[in-house]
Amino acid sequence: MSGGGLGFLGPAGTFTEAALRRLDPVAAETAWAAPNVPAALQAVREGSLDAALVPFENSVEGSVSATLDELIRGEPLVITAEVHVEVEFALMARSGTQLSAVRRVATHPVAIAQTREWLAAHLPDAEVIPESSTARAAVLVAAEVYDAAIAAPLAAERHDLVVLEDGIADRQGAVTRFIRLARPGVVPEATGADVTTVVAYLRHNHAGALLDLLNQFAMRGVDLVRLESRPTGEALGQYCFAIEALGHLSEPRVAEALAGLRRICADVRYLGSYPRADGAPAAVPDVATAAAYEESRAWLDGLSR
Amino acid sequence: MSGGGLGFLGPAGTFTEAALRRLDPVAAETAWAAPNVPAALQAVREGSLDAALVPFENSVEGSVSATLDELIRGEPLVITAEVHVEVEFALMARSGTQLSAVRRVATHPVAIAQTREWLAAHLPDAEVIPESSTARAAVLVAAEVYDAAIAAPLAAERHDLVVLEDGIADRQGAVTRFIRLARPGVVPEATGADVTTVVAYLRHNHAGALLDLLNQFAMRGVDLVRLESRPTGEALGQYCFAIEALGHLSEPRVAEALAGLRRICADVRYLGSYPRADGAPAAVPDVATAAAYEESRAWLDGLSR
Amino acid sequence: MSGGGLGFLGPAGTFTEAALRRLDPVAAETAWAAPNVPAALQAVREGSLDAALVPFENSVEGSVSATLDELIRGEPLVITAEVHVEVEFALMARSGTQLSAVRRVATHPVAIAQTREWLAAHLPDAEVIPESSTARAAVLVAAEVYDAAIAAPLAAERHDLVVLEDGIADRQGAVTRFIRLARPGVVPEATGADVTTVVAYLRHNHAGALLDLLNQFAMRGVDLVRLESRPTGEALGQYCFAIEALGHLSEPRVAEALAGLRRICADVRYLGSYPRADGAPAAVPDVATAAAYEESRAWLDGLSR
Amino acid sequence: MSGGGLGFLGPAGTFTEAALRRLDPVAAETAWAAPNVPAALQAVREGSLDAALVPFENSVEGSVSATLDELIRGEPLVITAEVHVEVEFALMARSGTQLSAVRRVATHPVAIAQTREWLAAHLPDAEVIPESSTARAAVLVAAEVYDAAIAAPLAAERHDLVVLEDGIADRQGAVTRFIRLARPGVVPEATGADVTTVVAYLRHNHAGALLDLLNQFAMRGVDLVRLESRPTGEALGQYCFAIEALGHLSEPRVAEALAGLRRICADVRYLGSYPRADGAPAAVPDVATAAAYEESRAWLDGLSR
Repeated sequence: MSGGGLGFLGPAGTFTEAALRRLDPVAAETAWAAPNVPAALQAVREGSLDAALVPFENSVEGSVSATLDELIRGEPLVITAEVHVEVEFALMARSGTQLSAVRRVATHPVAIAQTREWLAAHLPDAEVIPESSTARAAVLVAAEVYDAAIAAPLAAERHDLVVLEDGIADRQGAVTRFIRLARPGVVPEATGADVTTVVAYLRHNHAGALLDLLNQFAMRGVDLVRLESRPTGEALGQYCFAIEALGHLSEPRVAEALAGLRRICADVRYLGSYPRADGAPAAVPDVATAAAYEESRAWLDGLSR
Repeated sequence: MSGGGLGFLGPAGTFTEAALRRLDPVAAETAWAAPNVPAALQAVREGSLDAALVPFENSVEGSVSATLDELIRGEPLVITAEVHVEVEFALMARSGTQLSAVRRVATHPVAIAQTREWLAAHLPDAEVIPESSTARAAVLVAAEVYDAAIAAPLAAERHDLVVLEDGIADRQGAVTRFIRLARPGVVPEATGADVTTVVAYLRHNHAGALLDLLNQFAMRGVDLVRLESRPTGEALGQYCFAIEALGHLSEPRVAEALAGLRRICADVRYLGSYPRADGAPAAVPDVATAAAYEESRAWLDGLSR
Repeated sequence: MSGGGLGFLGPAGTFTEAALRRLDPVAAETAWAAPNVPAALQAVREGSLDAALVPFENSVEGSVSATLDELIRGEPLVITAEVHVEVEFALMARSGTQLSAVRRVATHPVAIAQTREWLAAHLPDAEVIPESSTARAAVLVAAEVYDAAIAAPLAAERHDLVVLEDGIADRQGAVTRFIRLARPGVVPEATGADVTTVVAYLRHNHAGALLDLLNQFAMRGVDLVRLESRPTGEALGQYCFAIEALGHLSEPRVAEALAGLRRICADVRYLGSYPRADGAPAAVPDVATAAAYEESRAWLDGLSR
Repeated sequence: MSGGGLGFLGPAGTFTEAALRRLDPVAAETAWAAPNVPAALQAVREGSLDAALVPFENSVEGSVSATLDELIRGEPLVITAEVHVEVEFALMARSGTQLSAVRRVATHPVAIAQTREWLAAHLPDAEVIPESSTARAAVLVAAEVYDAAIAAPLAAERHDLVVLEDGIADRQGAVTRFIRLARPGVVPEATGADVTTVVAYLRHNHAGALLDLLNQFAMRGVDLVRLESRPTGEALGQYCFAIEALGHLSEPRVAEALAGLRRICADVRYLGSYPRADGAPAAVPDVATAAAYEESRAWLDGLSR
């Protein structure tokens, strides 16, 4: 693990590595494959890594709790980039293996669930063994523990396997979102197409309090793209909310909304402002542009001379 | 009319003069009695007066349109003080006049309406003549045009009349609110018990727009004490809103609400921040105090180093 | 005054009579010219009239307080029709009078205010005398008390005068709105382009309470066209609100909003549902149509069998 | 599996069985231990069971996705009861086993996570093996596969083991909530302390839409105790919301809120109204009681005769 480099959720050949190659191909060459999410993030916190890429959310399975809980409960980190990768499953084996000879297939339980129909149609008699990651399944195929693995195509390349069959997910179009995490303090420049992520703890646990929270954004013309409740762990019925808003901390409408959130909440944790994966510019109402804020501020200043 | 002095809605002995005596007894000694509201305000605008006191609102009759329309449509002025005076009607006549000898009573039409029952019971046969102000009625009694006037007790003192009967209003407890108007620019210091008055023109004329307007205050913990719609004169269904909020321009919650109002409205006219007549301190929610604003600003500043 | 007929704010030739001719030309032939608004409404309440037409609002001057206060404080009546009439001022005199011979012009104070520029330009030396109505001014010209009157063109026809000059208002386009009032109980059929008028008394006098009130309409997709505050007369800062909404009592979205209003308010007075003067159909959101209400009701009924 | 009986998430000795014993001790005697959540619910849907008890939520781990996803995506079922059980972990072994002789401990991964500190302190050298449920771990201890299991105390009783150590959770006070599911149509009677659960799909995926949704409840005085977002599976950023409100379908405020929700949402799935586990009566604002609804309805009916 080289001080100041990048890390990702390993082992080599995971979907996370595929995501990192898309985000930053050069850094991907020398990046460290962390054994799990907490290890990756701990290395960032301690400074032995500059940043780490980890999965955050899947369009079918929802949040990756390991990552979200680390962000909520662990020592603070901020998101500095996101990347979306379509989930693409391939069946891979050692060179020379025929499909008909596959008896034992290993993969991650999520991949089992998402390739169930293909397996029933093409390998009805094979034993399917759950492993802790799709890439690890590929490693174990290379080590001749199993006959085949279901994993990202990249895993074949990284572990010297061949792809027997590509695109075997039962349902096409599932997408996973990965985030790059760094130590707090540095905020990427605004691009006009940014996301800001925070976690908010309400003071009171009722409908009115959540309305007030949402109003902090709505009133300032800031749109939300995600609202995710997580138990705080205190008691049943105690939640915090992970919120993702379209806009950047440096915009006055976003800054005012965050400050308002801070005042009405028991606690707010800022998790970063960073460019949107899809690059779609935020739709800012006329009354909430930086120019509108500047004009209103100048007007206010002119009232008392 | 002395340059730099005070004016009030005259003639001598009006309720406005009584209000001025309560607000500023020394200045009242030398204040100019303006013939009408526009004349008083014009003198302030031109600089021949520093300020003028005029009636603004009555608890029974509502707004004084002459004053409100001047504030809305005329060259800008700001309110620097307010004073509330209970309306107290007295019947007054020249010394030596007996109640039984009163045949012709003069007063302002509002006073006729508010003493109707007393007149029916005590002067059923007297002719009641409307005049342009209660004080002018007293002047004309002194000039022997009428036998008696219904006016503020002060009018008797000012025009050398005697009070035949005091407290003759049919309904006790009516209150008139007077405001002192000055040229814009100087804002009285915050006292913790202040009112801020503005006039707002909505961009769109529907329920949602007015909700947004009210939300600018509610969201920042600023309470309203008055909302008065006035036609803009453009067409049926076109209104602006005179709004009075509890708080002072120098408070961040008020400043942020006004700036928000400015952004969402077609136009906003600031009419001043000044001490409340009743001195009751504003109830500021914990989440909207100046300290809470300062803390949230500091937090925000710490997010990007 | 014929039992069961119509009345209007007289005398003959007022703008109200002109409005009645537009609304119901046949009834206008035999309608009773009431001396003032309270007299007209009292005759309806007592049953000697079926209904009466009175002015309600002017695009420049705002509400007609006499009418609004009767509706708010008097024995209940409901609005069953409205009509908008453009204010058109004419100078009229007895046949044979030359403009140059006009020395004394009578009219209502509002008409003085709205023809000031024309008078200054064309009759700079004439004395202008305020009268209690424009039609009464015409009556007095016919009676040779004055040389000329400023009134509605209809007044010339009704009092045998000739129009010397038409369209003399300084500002064109002012509109007055008239309403027909009847005893409560009968509601005109819905037309798809209706107004519903109510007066609401808040329980609490703060911004939040007014927000809740407006929300009762906004949440049900009911748009407001007018919100007018009036003092209740109790104390400074105590108001009720006259509210006009687009829609008809028989629509479920309107009925639900009114019932909601009733629950949150100290008191609500229903002032009628009636066709809009301009016939513009209400824009009803998809989620608030009668069909949407019916579907949601059926769904609800199916949940517990 | 007896037709018409009860089922629960087995095997014998799970926390779910402990919960069932608390909820319905008699039925618990003959209840069927289902192998997994889908199997239990399928038996209810097909009619071979009347109802089934399954875990729904944990105060530390959050929702039980298997149950929530079945409720959201599977053929409709409704909740007819809930029960909260404090999580209490015990270490259990075959009679005669000494703590010092324990080499291999089996349990569910969640239990591993929640007893990590105790294990490090008292069994630092033992191998800890994950199993699919705590009760299954106990079964395998009885079958001499492992030396000890961490499970609910009930599991010891059911599988003839002895408790070596009780209360070994690192963090006390974690609570799991279980729900009893039945076929739709029958709604338990209102008790005054009820919960209503629904799943709502927004038409539009923005802050305003969620505000509208929450407002449907807040405006009718209905408080929420839970709001949980779940991906719909369509794409990143597409969620539905599981909502739990305090109140019962038979209350007009709740019925009106649900009907409103139905109108504004793309879809709403009703998941039942049932007594609250803690029996705390709902705080119903004066303006939202059944009596207030009845009064407002009667008022409305009286407006048109």
